Amino acid sequence: MRKLINDPDNIVDELIDGFVLANKDKVKRIKGTTAVARIDAPIKDKVGIVIGGGAGHEPLFIEYVGKGMADAEAHGQIFTSPSSAVILEAIKAADAGKGVLLVYCNYAGDVLNFNAAQEIARDEGIEVDTSLIYDDISSAPLDNKEDRRGTTATPIIIKIAGAASSTGMGLNELKGLVDTASINSRSLGVSLSACTLPETGLATFTLEDGKMEFGMGLHGEAGIKKVDIMTADKTTETILDLIIADLPFSEGDEVIALVNGYGSTTRMEMFIVARKIHQYLGQKGIDIYSTEIGEFCTSLEMAGMSITLIKLDDKIKEYYDMAADSSGYIKL
Amino acid sequence: MRKLINDPDNIVDELIDGFVLANKDKVKRIKGTTAVARIDAPIKDKVGIVIGGGAGHEPLFIEYVGKGMADAEAHGQIFTSPSSAVILEAIKAADAGKGVLLVYCNYAGDVLNFNAAQEIARDEGIEVDTSLIYDDISSAPLDNKEDRRGTTATPIIIKIAGAASSTGMGLNELKGLVDTASINSRSLGVSLSACTLPETGLATFTLEDGKMEFGMGLHGEAGIKKVDIMTADKTTETILDLIIADLPFSEGDEVIALVNGYGSTTRMEMFIVARKIHQYLGQKGIDIYSTEIGEFCTSLEMAGMSITLIKLDDKIKEYYDMAADSSGYIKL
Repeated sequence: MRKLINDPDNIVDELIDGFVLANKDKVKRIKGTTAVARIDAPIKDKVGIVIGGGAGHEPLFIEYVGKGMADAEAHGQIFTSPSSAVILEAIKAADAGKGVLLVYCNYAGDVLNFNAAQEIARDEGIEVDTSLIYDDISSAPLDNKEDRRGTTATPIIIKIAGAASSTGMGLNELKGLVDTASINSRSLGVSLSACTLPETGLATFTLEDGKMEFGMGLHGEAGIKKVDIMTADKTTETILDLIIADLPFSEGDEVIALVNGYGSTTRMEMFIVARKIHQYLGQKGIDIYSTEIGEFCTSLEMAGMSITLIKLDDKIKEYYDMAADSSGYIKL
Repeated sequence: MRKLINDPDNIVDELIDGFVLANKDKVKRIKGTTAVARIDAPIKDKVGIVIGGGAGHEPLFIEYVGKGMADAEAHGQIFTSPSSAVILEAIKAADAGKGVLLVYCNYAGDVLNFNAAQEIARDEGIEVDTSLIYDDISSAPLDNKEDRRGTTATPIIIKIAGAASSTGMGLNELKGLVDTASINSRSLGVSLSACTLPETGLATFTLEDGKMEFGMGLHGEAGIKKVDIMTADKTTETILDLIIADLPFSEGDEVIALVNGYGSTTRMEMFIVARKIHQYLGQKGIDIYSTEIGEFCTSLEMAGMSITLIKLDDKIKEYYDMAADSSGYIKL
């Protein structure tokens, strides 16, 4: 295994320690847990934003804690949901008496544990609600879109939640806004290689040389179509056709276009994809308000990329434009 | 080859197009060249900062063009210096009559072409000077430190040059400051796998499974020691011992500590390394002013990482702390 680690059993503990040491002006670790919070949490007169999920997707979620982003995060073991106990600690760290919104991705384990933590917190008198992210169009048909997995729209949805909450918006209105951002998001990815689990040294799946798979999940979940590796342009067109038809995105729409690298994708490749997105959406009359390029949500060192389109309205755009300051996402 | 590209001959052209389209509020392409410049270049009353080098190291150098960073960049083909003609165009785009400082890494091809462009520009009446970066301690002994290659100190040195130039500092003083930052920087890396050249599909070198190599260059240049893969902690200690002894860094020194991923390094691994850097420098009484973690300077999708320490003085710290806004480096 070609990885720089120490004891495989301590990976998550050590990564959180390193993250907090490197960002000690911004974040703190919640003692005895794998949760972190903004250094100044809880923030007075603000609904707390709590995020979380399994490790192995860094910068997701841990690096999206900060000013204008989330207030606290619960980090699980690799590709495993955090426990409800850890999520509860994150909720308590984020709550300043104005309530907490849970923003996370739709996976069975996460839903189970976040729901359990939500119930306990409510019993303890904390107002808590949930906005689920389910942008991955490959994981269930449109008729069952609430069954879809959450993927690479997540950093932008967290950013919008963080910005809106910092204006003092109440929990109900905030949930409505974040749900709208989530409903208006669509993603689809393509994998070119598997990743290796650091605890075992085993690959998450196998993909023969020369093949690529559309719709592969962030934990190696089977995709929707395996084909010979296509050009970047053809790959981009294929993804965009499916995403555009799904919402649908229409002429005159204004969008954020995000290109996400899964782990070992070069920025060179991501820029070549971004070039085609601009050309292709231009032909369709869809206006790109902003292009985001980076490894926002990884699957360890998997090769490949996903494209996310988020349809904007004036409100979402206003919160997208606000400043953000986290280790994984900065906006001036 | 597991890469998302189109025609291998057009990679650099297309990546620059995509980069400029994605950042059109910040940068422009200099027509007919592989050079880019700040959208508002040349900037009045400011020495221009011109950077550049081969492609394949993105975000280096192209993504360090922006406010508080460089004014123009010359991008070469993959692992190949830009031509003197392209560098000359970048110099002209950056020059507002107050002169231009060339800031780039010490490689024979780059030195040849940047020097040629400098001579032509001077002949045309533009005041030009050079600050070379040569932080890689593995590439030549201390007695010949001017022969060393420039590596992962580069983004921070560009950041300091960009900030200082934006205060209106003259060319001579600026060169002195940037040279000091360069002289106070030391880096050393370790590779865990090779990368594949997208034009040919060939690996840059071979490294048997289970081995790691210290001092491997960014283009597959041979390193100084091949060993069985060690723990992250032991790897970090080994690198720090060599870096600390080389400057030398001493008790009471204040440093920027940078962990750089080479391409397919997970942030998980980089945080585990950062944790050890904090522990180890703490034991030595060396104070970490700031920790930078990211893929700042890659070798396509090579696995492994490098550590850079930059010794600070009050002046360098002042310019490091100023705001920066480029696609590859943002500071609030």
